[in-house]
Amino acid sequence: MTKPQIGVIGMAVMGRNLALNIESRGYTVALYNRSFDKTEEVVRENPGRKLVPTQSLEAFVAALETPRRILIMVKAGDATDATIAALRPLLAPGDILMDGGNTLFADTIRRNRELATTGINFIGMGVSGGEEGALKGPSIMPGGQRDAYELAAPILREIAARAPDGEPCVTYIGPGGAGHYVKMVHNGIEYGDMQLIAEAYALLKGVAGLSNDELADTFADWNTGELDSFLIEITAQVFRKRDAETGGYLVDAILDKAGQKGTGKWTSQSALDLGVALPLITESVFARCISALKDQRVAASAVLAGPAAAPFEGDRAAFVEAVRRALYLSKIISYAQGFAQLRAASDEHGWDLQYGEIAKIFRAGCIIRARFLQRITDAYQANPAVANLLLDPYFAGIAADYQAALREVVCHAVRAGVPVPTFASAVAYFDSYRSARLPANLIQAQRDFFGAHTYERMDRAGIFHSDWQHA
Amino acid sequence: MTKPQIGVIGMAVMGRNLALNIESRGYTVALYNRSFDKTEEVVRENPGRKLVPTQSLEAFVAALETPRRILIMVKAGDATDATIAALRPLLAPGDILMDGGNTLFADTIRRNRELATTGINFIGMGVSGGEEGALKGPSIMPGGQRDAYELAAPILREIAARAPDGEPCVTYIGPGGAGHYVKMVHNGIEYGDMQLIAEAYALLKGVAGLSNDELADTFADWNTGELDSFLIEITAQVFRKRDAETGGYLVDAILDKAGQKGTGKWTSQSALDLGVALPLITESVFARCISALKDQRVAASAVLAGPAAAPFEGDRAAFVEAVRRALYLSKIISYAQGFAQLRAASDEHGWDLQYGEIAKIFRAGCIIRARFLQRITDAYQANPAVANLLLDPYFAGIAADYQAALREVVCHAVRAGVPVPTFASAVAYFDSYRSARLPANLIQAQRDFFGAHTYERMDRAGIFHSDWQHA
Repeated sequence: MTKPQIGVIGMAVMGRNLALNIESRGYTVALYNRSFDKTEEVVRENPGRKLVPTQSLEAFVAALETPRRILIMVKAGDATDATIAALRPLLAPGDILMDGGNTLFADTIRRNRELATTGINFIGMGVSGGEEGALKGPSIMPGGQRDAYELAAPILREIAARAPDGEPCVTYIGPGGAGHYVKMVHNGIEYGDMQLIAEAYALLKGVAGLSNDELADTFADWNTGELDSFLIEITAQVFRKRDAETGGYLVDAILDKAGQKGTGKWTSQSALDLGVALPLITESVFARCISALKDQRVAASAVLAGPAAAPFEGDRAAFVEAVRRALYLSKIISYAQGFAQLRAASDEHGWDLQYGEIAKIFRAGCIIRARFLQRITDAYQANPAVANLLLDPYFAGIAADYQAALREVVCHAVRAGVPVPTFASAVAYFDSYRSARLPANLIQAQRDFFGAHTYERMDRAGIFHSDWQHA
Repeated sequence: MTKPQIGVIGMAVMGRNLALNIESRGYTVALYNRSFDKTEEVVRENPGRKLVPTQSLEAFVAALETPRRILIMVKAGDATDATIAALRPLLAPGDILMDGGNTLFADTIRRNRELATTGINFIGMGVSGGEEGALKGPSIMPGGQRDAYELAAPILREIAARAPDGEPCVTYIGPGGAGHYVKMVHNGIEYGDMQLIAEAYALLKGVAGLSNDELADTFADWNTGELDSFLIEITAQVFRKRDAETGGYLVDAILDKAGQKGTGKWTSQSALDLGVALPLITESVFARCISALKDQRVAASAVLAGPAAAPFEGDRAAFVEAVRRALYLSKIISYAQGFAQLRAASDEHGWDLQYGEIAKIFRAGCIIRARFLQRITDAYQANPAVANLLLDPYFAGIAADYQAALREVVCHAVRAGVPVPTFASAVAYFDSYRSARLPANLIQAQRDFFGAHTYERMDRAGIFHSDWQHA
């Protein structure tokens, strides 16, 4: 066997699958895990593959071709710091550490800066696609030193997913924490997409009374059009899945408490720090928080009555189409917010993010892969400076055509007592963003009244303060 | 003159006014400011008062009665740390430092812990009421060592605002950062209240066509009922205020870009960390962010058309009443979220917050002072363990009576294209919280599908994973 061209640290499922993916492209891969058992297991379960198990970090580092390319796949946080601290004395200037975990971008900025003083390159690399993506082709978002990225790029391009046009779903994102930042916002967008689909489900089932088979057919149908995407596709499959034990539909047996691992929360917190409006994703994070209060909700359902249930009167097919349009327009509004956040972060950190390229690498491999991402790439190609995707002619056209459906669906839900936090938030954002005049003048008057916070005027420049107590 | 019983550091408007407030209760007050000019100015402008100007921190500390009571009123952040560092070698165990700035609670926790090792007490003290409140009686939220609080309490009780029943608006909040945390949530609630009022304004003016005089009359009328509060009162005054130069209404001349100083943002970020749903306040923070994009909004208004304008048809008085009900119920929903956050923070930090007492000290002095706060105190007195204020009989009753109006107002706004992010968010939260079953089962199915994140079941305990790819 040749000297390993790359090594992977961490043999949990993501690390293991990425190692197997790399090996399958013709590379020899050194493996290391804190407990050797797991490393042995990977090698045993994959006989005949060019995997080099190592029992110590020293042996692992010594085995690698130089400059060393090392992919760290450990639990994000302290474990990453511990791994880097243990590796650091063993490495040489020019070596390339890649962190493929779901790491907070601020940690990546810090690690990149600290390691740069020793000449070691640090690539913070978002990897999306779950277990299967890791094995067969994820979407990869690397950030850090560009030179170092170029040395790893041939491997990354080979293991990445391929978009429909054959392009690998990996590109240099930017310096410092840019890669992990983009991955974080990707995950935030994923939270929004999933909550939007959940609200569509609640409406189709709760208002129009669709059965699980009809839901499966509806989502399968939607997947052939504008909404064509991984999440819509698997939603159709979810509704068909039977519970092996009861014979009923599995989705109906699942407890309605949604978990979360923190990246959605981080996305919202970063938006707040940047002063960028990200209401849709944030409502989806909070929706998961409320879902977790199952016991409280059951108790509250006995205390807080809503509107009386009414049988659905109207055209079911028309309602389903209205929900589809509401979903597509809300999704566009969510991405407009997410990409506005990327622009603000890029300006803040000097990352020079290429928004169209980012949308391109989301087209395959990752959880939010979708046909409509090409539209985002097209929009930034047509106008790289577009401040908000809603201003792009294609998206503005969808807004013009579909807003009536979105408004109708929100009103229907509000009247029926079906919670639609993200659909409603989408309308509010759309109407706020397209308002030349908002009632914030009143807020400024109040702030100046009680706190002398001053205000600006419509008719001329300057900072003003008034004595409001006297008319 | 007697030896000063207390000293104030920082002679900006809040520090100055608090010093004068304290002096007016019969105390002698030592003053210190980094530049002595300002200290001299305060003394010069207030002849005959028991104010002791000092030129150095050494002289300031030496002048004080022991154990020393020192109120720090400097810009929150680095200036606070610098002031503490300079004071520390001059102080003795048992002395009491009070930080009355708008400090992030995490900083207060850190400073309290660090100073405790030296025997110096550190009280993080929220002060609300603006300049006028500081001078005449603010609402005060002190947190830290209880013994130390008791030594400062006689003064704090005298300078605090008085509730209608004569009780001073100050109480021991809890250890560590509890005081600043409660002040932070107070400010977040203030953001929500102001955005709700702004949306009511947009509807009354934009949909029902009320003039500024009619708006003033409407808010003045609302201030005589359930909505009786400082913010409603000043809103009425704002609509009457004339622009001295143009003769027009001043509110119409104010630029619709709302500023913010960070406490609303902190409140949302903390809610996200705690996993507590705080959508209404968060939407109000984001609404300010969107308002700041004035140029983008003006540009977008030419690209993104909304519903065609329609003349108001219907009963204007009935619409005004519907907006009033929507506002009151939404306000209740916002406070339910804020107090749920306080409970989560109290549990997380072991603060043992007394929610009814907190609502009590909000009844006067502070920006969110309102008649309805007594209802919150009553609710926690009736059931200290109530998980959410919406479950209290009074608030549940308002929800039952007013939800139809809130739904109608939201639908009206959504149809008319008037942005109502917080009204809409209030409905969504209410309907989510009272849902025994939410569509989060689908989200769990999706997460298990693509990430093997596992799920729980409705029918039995355990953690489950399924192979979703095969029906």
